[in-house]
Order: sequence, then C-alpha cells, then structure tokens
Amino acid sequence: MGKALIIGAGGVANVVAHKCCQVPEVFEEICIASRTLKKCEDIRDKLTGSRTKVRVAQVDADQTEEVIQLIKEFQPELVINVALPYQDLTIMEACLATGVHYVDTANYEPPNVPKFEYKWQWAYREKFAQAGLTALLGSGFDPGVTGVFCAYAQKHYFDEIHTIDIVDANGGDHGYPFATNFNPEINIREITAKGRYYKEGEWIETDPLSVKKVYDLEEIGPKNIYLLYHEELESLAQNIKGIKQIRFWMTFSDNYLNHLKVLENVGMTSIEPIEFEGQQIIPLHFLKAVLPDPASLGPRTKGKTNIGCIIQGVKDGQPRTYYVYNICDHQECYAEVGSQAISYTTGVPAMIGAKLIMEGKWQKPGVYNVEEFDPDPFMADLNKYGLPWREDFAPTLLDEE
Amino acid sequence: MGKALIIGAGGVANVVAHKCCQVPEVFEEICIASRTLKKCEDIRDKLTGSRTKVRVAQVDADQTEEVIQLIKEFQPELVINVALPYQDLTIMEACLATGVHYVDTANYEPPNVPKFEYKWQWAYREKFAQAGLTALLGSGFDPGVTGVFCAYAQKHYFDEIHTIDIVDANGGDHGYPFATNFNPEINIREITAKGRYYKEGEWIETDPLSVKKVYDLEEIGPKNIYLLYHEELESLAQNIKGIKQIRFWMTFSDNYLNHLKVLENVGMTSIEPIEFEGQQIIPLHFLKAVLPDPASLGPRTKGKTNIGCIIQGVKDGQPRTYYVYNICDHQECYAEVGSQAISYTTGVPAMIGAKLIMEGKWQKPGVYNVEEFDPDPFMADLNKYGLPWREDFAPTLLDEE
Repeated sequence: MGKALIIGAGGVANVVAHKCCQVPEVFEEICIASRTLKKCEDIRDKLTGSRTKVRVAQVDADQTEEVIQLIKEFQPELVINVALPYQDLTIMEACLATGVHYVDTANYEPPNVPKFEYKWQWAYREKFAQAGLTALLGSGFDPGVTGVFCAYAQKHYFDEIHTIDIVDANGGDHGYPFATNFNPEINIREITAKGRYYKEGEWIETDPLSVKKVYDLEEIGPKNIYLLYHEELESLAQNIKGIKQIRFWMTFSDNYLNHLKVLENVGMTSIEPIEFEGQQIIPLHFLKAVLPDPASLGPRTKGKTNIGCIIQGVKDGQPRTYYVYNICDHQECYAEVGSQAISYTTGVPAMIGAKLIMEGKWQKPGVYNVEEFDPDPFMADLNKYGLPWREDFAPTLLDEE
Repeated sequence: MGKALIIGAGGVANVVAHKCCQVPEVFEEICIASRTLKKCEDIRDKLTGSRTKVRVAQVDADQTEEVIQLIKEFQPELVINVALPYQDLTIMEACLATGVHYVDTANYEPPNVPKFEYKWQWAYREKFAQAGLTALLGSGFDPGVTGVFCAYAQKHYFDEIHTIDIVDANGGDHGYPFATNFNPEINIREITAKGRYYKEGEWIETDPLSVKKVYDLEEIGPKNIYLLYHEELESLAQNIKGIKQIRFWMTFSDNYLNHLKVLENVGMTSIEPIEFEGQQIIPLHFLKAVLPDPASLGPRTKGKTNIGCIIQGVKDGQPRTYYVYNICDHQECYAEVGSQAISYTTGVPAMIGAKLIMEGKWQKPGVYNVEEFDPDPFMADLNKYGLPWREDFAPTLLDEE
C-alpha cells in the first residue's frame, strides 16, 4: 500500500519497525532513520526475511532541512516520529513542506523546559488542515491507547462520562536494585514534578507523589499508585464532553521511591551544574552515566504491565462503571521483538495509528489526538497486533478503596 | 618549653592549634603547615592574643624533602601529624632525618589500597629507637583515648582483662538528610568494609554491618551499634596481655545506612572510574563534590558523642566489669574552638600526646602506641583539657542486651 519513514532508532522504533513488517500489505517499505546509522542498521539486521522492504538512513531530526531531504528521497506517505519529544516540531515542519502525514507518541517539549503541553503542536492545526494532511498526536499507549479506550467507552457504553482514572502499572522486575526503564532524566523529571488533575473546569495541583492509593491490579496484585500529571489529561479534558474529573495514576515501588528520594536528597538528581575538577557537570547527567543503560533492561525484565481506564458515567439514565485495560508480559514482548513491554506498548499503537492513516480510516486533515477518531478499527487492531484488551463492568473504583 | 610543628590544616588541625595555645607554658611556638597556606592562615587568624606564638608555612607533606626543609627552618621539638594518613611515612622519614619526635592520630594507609594496619609504621621501631626519638602512633580518640582507657583499666582495676568492647556513638544531628562528618571517601570506605574482631588468638571476619546490637548510651539514649574493624584493635590485641576478645562498635542511624546503601546500589560509592563525556571519573569523587562539605557541618551540628570502653576481667580472683567513657557536646566544642566534637575529640588527645612528649613524661625511644605508656598523666590531662571521663563499675554488658 505504501511507504513509512520511521524517525528514531531506540526501543520504541525497534518495536514499530518489527510491527510494520508484520503488516506488509500496508507497509510495503519502511525506512529507519536516526542520527546514529549503526542503531538503524542493528534494527534492520533483525528484520531479514520480512516481506516489507527495509532501508536505513542517517538524519539529524533537529534539522528540518535534513528531514525534508530524506522525505524527498524516500517519498513515504507518512512519518512515524519516535525520536525525542524535542524534535516533534522540526519533523512536523518537514511533513508540511513535503506533503506527508505525521504520527508521534509524545508531545513536543521545549529543550530544557520540561512542559507537558499540546499548545505548540495544536498551533499547527490550520496548516495541516490546509495542506490536506493528517497529524496524529500521541499514538502510543499513554497517551494513545488510553485515549482510544475513552473514545470507545464514550461511543458504546455511555451517554455521559463523568470521571476517568487512568491507571498505569508496571509489575516488571529487572533484578537491579535501581534502574529507570527509559531515559532516566525524563523518568526522574516526571515523578519529581507536581501532580495535577482536572476537576470541574479546573486544574488542581498536588505536591509530588503526595496523593497515593492502593489498587489491586489483575495479574499484578495490589500496588501503590500515585497521582501524576500526564499529557493525555489535557486533550481528554477537552475532547470527552461533559467530563467532571480526570486523573492519572502510576505505580512506583517503595524501593524505587526510596532510591529516588535519596538521590534527590544528596543532590544527584539536580540539573544545576556543580564544579568538579575544574569542569561544570550536571549531577543528573552523571547519575545517568552511572545507572544501568535502559536498553540493557530488556532481556532481564520479568513480569507484566497493566494499563487501563476506569470510567464512571451515565447510560440511559442509569449510573454505569466500566474498566478497559491491557495486560502485557515483558518476557513475551522481548521474545517477539527484542524489546520489553514499556517499548512494546508504545510501539504497537504507533504502528496501528500509522496503519489506519495509510488505510484511509483515520485520515482527517488537521492535527488531532487519538480520541478524536473512530475508536473501533484501532480497538480491533489492538487485539490483532499484540495488545488485546479486557473489559470489566463492575470494577473497584479508586475512591472506594 | 618548646616548639611544635602541626602538619595539616583541617578540622583536627584547627583543634590541635587552639589547644596548644591553651598550654603556652609547654607550646611556646607552633607552626601550622599544609599544602594550602590560606587554610593555615585562617586558623592562625582565630588565635590572635594567644601567648603561644603562631606561624604558618606552605608544605607538601607527600615530599619528604619539603618537610625536612621546613623542620630545619622552624626547628621544632616535635611534629604533630594531622594531615592525611597517606602521608604518615614521609613525615616519619623527615622526623628521623632531622631528629625530632613524632605524633599522629591515624595509621598509615597506602594510597588507593585502604588497609588499616600498623605494619608499615611499626617497621620504623628500630630506626626511632636508634635515633633516640619517640614516635607516638594513634593519639586521637579512637585510636588514642580508647587505648589509654584500656591501659588505665589494666593498671588500676584488673589483674587480667578478658574482653574489651569499644563503643563509639555519635548522637549529633547536622540537619542535612545525608552528609558525612569527615572526609566522605574514608567514611564510606570504613563502613562498606568487612567487620573484624579478635577472639582467642584469631581474627574473625564479618560481613559489612552484619553484626548489630542496641545499646543505651548515657546522654544519647538507645542506639543501633554495628561491629566494625578499627585500627586500635590490632595494637590492643598485642599490648593488653591475656586479652581474650576485643571488638569495636559504632552507631549509625537507619537513615544514614539507607542513604549509603542506595548510593552503593546505584554505583555512586565505587572507586572504579566510569566514562563520562570522554573523561574517566571516579563516582565516589563526584559524590564527594555533590555532598555538603564536612567543614560546613560544624556550626549546624547539635547533640553529643559518647565514646568509651566496656571491659571485663578479673581482679583479686573476682570477676569485675568497668566502663570508662567520655561524653562530648558538639555545640560546646564549636563555641570553644570552631570545630564540632568529631574533630575536637581527635584534636585534644593529639595535643595531650605531644605535650607529654615535650614534658618528657612520654619519651621512650622507638615507635609506640598510646597504651604502651603510663596512662595516668594522659587521663589527668583529659580532665583538664576538655575531655573529662566518667566511670561505671556496673555497666550493661553488650552480650547481655
């Protein structure tokens, strides 16, 4: 059917490439491009025998012109951006300049100013609409599948949704006393930031990790979950009409938080440079160099993830509750594609979003979040491509625990 | 009476200089010398008005020739070495070459091979004896006062000492979540090392911090104490005739050990260099740069130390127990000399050891540990110069708790 350009060559890119090759009728050819050609080649070398043609290219995604040149050469229908969040805008610009669709999995962040906000990308709505191009934002798991879950609930089970609790649990164990499962800088920033949730038209801020509950998760067991801000809250608060409250929760073990607290106490998570042997060094960067490489965790990680949405609302005048979730096994993911569940649950939905655009099912000129499309084909593809979901019509609610 | 050269300009040197100036009838003149002249000048500037004359000098104590030159110029009777343990041997060599007595507070350690052993310094016995010079090793608190305590018990209260437990408790609080109260590198090395104690002719090794008791300490309260190896065990096992068992215990709070464990887990206490931005950096050195400067703890530290020896044995055919200890208040020390109790309890005994040599009371050609001299004048001076001791003839024994 067509060609897709994948920008990025990390764990998620590896999953996207593997998954595209499982759908050769849609992805006839892919190109994996990143700053480091070797990383692209390493992924390509694992894909031999695929009916999808695979090529690689070197590109610096910070440079719009380089991306434009690459698109002109390769002539894809669409770009799947799984590079760094700092590069979303340069890649969107390149798509506009060359007339190709765009998919990503995380919102743009200005370098050195961690801000989870869609405003920079939403500002492109008019331009993509006029160019007749679709930009699909946040097509990972969370954001991504969580938004599709909400849209699916809205479409099939509710007249009005009143509350949504997104619960992201990682029951995986990598066997190290402490490691972060993706870029530790982003990991640490995320949980040292203030929490925030939406309630009746307002955003309410909470101190970092100050709101905690215990929730018993299927195939994982009871876990401490903590209220965090997460980017899909912004778009869902706008796109789910009549919503009264939406919150995001993530599991962290006591051991993980203890390690993080100590590292914060002694100053190792600081991004303020200190003087060391005549040089300025950022402690967090040094910590990152000391910690295990996130890429090394894949083969070691056992256990499962469980991510889903607990929804309350009204149908036909009656109160209703609904929980839709996916359980994913780290070792099964690693056996299938050579990445664990954190990368897998992000990469599969990126492929599906791209596929639906390629197939014309999710084409709509402009810039959109996942919940603004028909969820049904996406939900069907989740079952088909490795992220089957389950439903519970009588879940335990968080405020009951 | 004479002149003393103090080598070193840290917290302990500051205490030694202050204390020498309180005994001008013995210390007519002192010279404070270290690699960084400014640190010597800072100490000198706090000693104005003293009857003892104070001068300063720059010296690299790694260079025997530089130390010899300085001794030749200043012509002291004695050198008080409160520099780094790596420099004990160069300074001893310089004393031999110039014919002056020697006092230190910590045994020589080869650089990069942390070893608490007297063998390198004991190897100088013959040379000091032949030169008619006294080298007094380990005249701090522990080693130092603890050895004098044992000698005093032996002299006055026991026919035979069977067991000694040295208990070093620091009930001080500096208000930081984590900091080390002297050079963090040495601090961390000490407690990540295996424990070791002497029992009936053998040295028994224990895993780091694996042997723990609770002991209720006067003016501090009940604390966790952990079995460690400490250098005075080596000399006391030889010098206290008939000893069956000798152990050393130190307090650490759960919070302190938790911080240390995490830092060890993530690799921040390692002395193996890692690659960082093209350079080789030792994580422990970087950690040291991130942590609060030990010198900054003085004005902040509240609470007390309690260090002493719990001794069991026989007198006149009857079993006997004896506990001799000192309690020292961090804030009182700081008010008196501008250093907290950790430096104070080391610096005062260094001055006393030097004073007794200057007075001829502890002169004995050769290399000796403190317990090899008559303890009575030292015990009297402890009471006179800020470290009064207390006795308990019915203490709780450690193996009773």
